[in-house]
Amino acid sequence: MPIRIIVTGGTFDKEYNELDGKLYFKDTHLREMLELGRSRVEVGIRTLMMIDSLEMTEQDRHLIVDRCAHAREDRIIVTHGTDTMEVSARALGQSVRNKTVVLTGAMVPYKFGSSDGLFNLGSALAFVQTLPHGVYIAMNGKYFSWDNVRKNRKTGAFEEIR
Amino acid sequence: MPIRIIVTGGTFDKEYNELDGKLYFKDTHLREMLELGRSRVEVGIRTLMMIDSLEMTEQDRHLIVDRCAHAREDRIIVTHGTDTMEVSARALGQSVRNKTVVLTGAMVPYKFGSSDGLFNLGSALAFVQTLPHGVYIAMNGKYFSWDNVRKNRKTGAFEEIR
Amino acid sequence: MPIRIIVTGGTFDKEYNELDGKLYFKDTHLREMLELGRSRVEVGIRTLMMIDSLEMTEQDRHLIVDRCAHAREDRIIVTHGTDTMEVSARALGQSVRNKTVVLTGAMVPYKFGSSDGLFNLGSALAFVQTLPHGVYIAMNGKYFSWDNVRKNRKTGAFEEIR
Amino acid sequence: MPIRIIVTGGTFDKEYNELDGKLYFKDTHLREMLELGRSRVEVGIRTLMMIDSLEMTEQDRHLIVDRCAHAREDRIIVTHGTDTMEVSARALGQSVRNKTVVLTGAMVPYKFGSSDGLFNLGSALAFVQTLPHGVYIAMNGKYFSWDNVRKNRKTGAFEEIR
Repeated sequence: MPIRIIVTGGTFDKEYNELDGKLYFKDTHLREMLELGRSRVEVGIRTLMMIDSLEMTEQDRHLIVDRCAHAREDRIIVTHGTDTMEVSARALGQSVRNKTVVLTGAMVPYKFGSSDGLFNLGSALAFVQTLPHGVYIAMNGKYFSWDNVRKNRKTGAFEEIR
Repeated sequence: MPIRIIVTGGTFDKEYNELDGKLYFKDTHLREMLELGRSRVEVGIRTLMMIDSLEMTEQDRHLIVDRCAHAREDRIIVTHGTDTMEVSARALGQSVRNKTVVLTGAMVPYKFGSSDGLFNLGSALAFVQTLPHGVYIAMNGKYFSWDNVRKNRKTGAFEEIR
Repeated sequence: MPIRIIVTGGTFDKEYNELDGKLYFKDTHLREMLELGRSRVEVGIRTLMMIDSLEMTEQDRHLIVDRCAHAREDRIIVTHGTDTMEVSARALGQSVRNKTVVLTGAMVPYKFGSSDGLFNLGSALAFVQTLPHGVYIAMNGKYFSWDNVRKNRKTGAFEEIR
Repeated sequence: MPIRIIVTGGTFDKEYNELDGKLYFKDTHLREMLELGRSRVEVGIRTLMMIDSLEMTEQDRHLIVDRCAHAREDRIIVTHGTDTMEVSARALGQSVRNKTVVLTGAMVPYKFGSSDGLFNLGSALAFVQTLPHGVYIAMNGKYFSWDNVRKNRKTGAFEEIR
C-alpha cells in the first residue's frame, strides 16, 4: 500500500512573489522534492490546504484529523508549518489509532538555498516506514512522540518537553 | 550514545576543480549537510578514505568492516559511492553483528544543484535510528537488506534482487 | 581608480529569518556575489543604508546623491530596491555631473534560488566600465537613462517611458 | 537588430551524468540563464557546436569565424570553453571587421552551485551592447581586447599580456 502524503502548506511550500516582495503559496513542491531525492517510494499526494500554520483554525485541524483517520493508508506524512505543528500533532495523537502519522515541515522554504526541507522530507519518509503506529513529529533529524514535543521559540529547534 | 558516521567518499563528496575541469575529492560535506538539515542528532564523523567506490579494494573493504565491527557505537552510517555499495554492504552484512549499519550515498554530488544527497542523508539518519540490528542500504527513499539489493545500472536506482 | 559600490539594501540583500518567517536585512551579499563571479575588478564597497526602497525618504535620497557627488571615484554602482529605483535615478541624474552612476537591484533576493541578482550585478559592473558619464539603471540585461525609465508594475520589468 | 548568441559548448554548458559520473554536454542553458536574469534583450541563440574547447580544431575555429563574419547582426556573443578562448579570440580578431564580438564562458558549469556563468553572461551582454567594434573576451567582470589577453593557468583568471 502506498504512503499517503497530506499537504497543509507551511514554510515548506512558500514562494517569493517578485512583484510585491511577499511570501505566498502557489503549489506544493512535494513532487519536485521527491524527484530530486530520486525517491522510488510509492506515494499518493493530496493538498488539503495551503496555509501558514499560524492561521490554522480548529476546523482546519478537524479536517486534518478526519482525513488521517479515514485514509485507507496506514502510513501518512503530513507537511505542516512548524509554528503550530505540535498542536496538530496533539489533535492527531488523541484521535488517530492504528496508523503511523509523521508530521514534518521546514524552517526555510524549499525554494530558498538554505532550506532544510529536503533533509526533513527524507527523514520523514524513512520514519513513516519504520516507526510503530503512533503520531510523531520528524524535525532536526529526530522523531518525537506527539505527547512529548514542543518547538523551542528561541532556537527554532524541536525538543522533548520532559 | 551518538551515531557514528564513517565517510568513504563517493559521488556525495565530489567537487568540481575549476582549474582542470575534473571532479575530485577535497573534504567531506557531511557537517555542512547536517547543518543545512538543522540536525540535532548527536553524531561523530570520521573520514576513513575519500575514494571513488569503483576504485575500492578488498583491503579498503576490510578496513570499513573492521571499523564498523570495532566501533563503540551500535548505530553507524557509512557514506559510500553507489557503484559498489552493494559489495560493501555484503561484506558488512557477513561480518558485523549486533549493530545497525546503514550505507548511503548520492547519484549527484552534493555541491551540484540537482543532488539527491541531502534527501538520502535525511533518510539514512532516520533509518539508522529506527531499524533493528542489521546491515542496510538507504537509497531512493527506501531501505534494503544487505543480502537483497543491487543497483540497476540502467536506471541508477536500487532495487531488490528477488 | 577602483569602482565605488554603494549599498542601500533592496531585495538584493534580503534574507529569510527562519525564526519568524519574515524577510529582513542582515549584511550585504555584494562581496560574496563578486567572489562567485570570480570578479577581478577593483572595487570599494560601502553600505550606506539597508532598507526597502519603499521606505526610502527624501533624506535618504539626499544622502545617496551626496555620496555619489562627493565620491573620489567617477564610476559608481548603487544597489537599490526596484520599487523606487527610478526616483533615486532622477535625483542622481539631476545632481551628479562628470560621473558614470549605474543603479541596479534584483527582483528576487540573491539568497533564493531564482534570483536575477548575479546576472544584474555582472551587467551593472560591465555597464559602469563602458558607458559615458551619466546616470543609468541596469536591469533586465539593458541600461536605461535616468530620464527615460520606469518600472512596469504589472510585469516587474523596466522599460523606456517614451 | 537583436544580438546574436553563438554557442560552442565549454564548461558553461556541461552537465553531470548521474549514471556514469562523467561530465557531458546535453543542451545549452543559455535560454534558461537569460530567463533567470529576467533579460529583456532581444537575442537569437544558435548552437554551433557543443564541445570542450581543448578539443576544438582549426576547422571548428574557421566555422566560428565564418559565422561571425557572415552574421547579419553586428553584435555577437560567443560562449566558449575558457581553455582556448584566447585562441578563438585571436582568430576572430584577425578576421572579423565592423562588428562587436564578445567571447565569454565559465570556470564552473552553470548547473553547479558555485558557477560564475550567470555573472559572466550578464557582463558579456552588457559589454556587447556598449563596446565599440572589435573582438573581446569578457571574464572576471572585465573585458580584454583579443590581442592582449591570456588565461593564467595557475589562477584560472584572465589577464592582460602586457
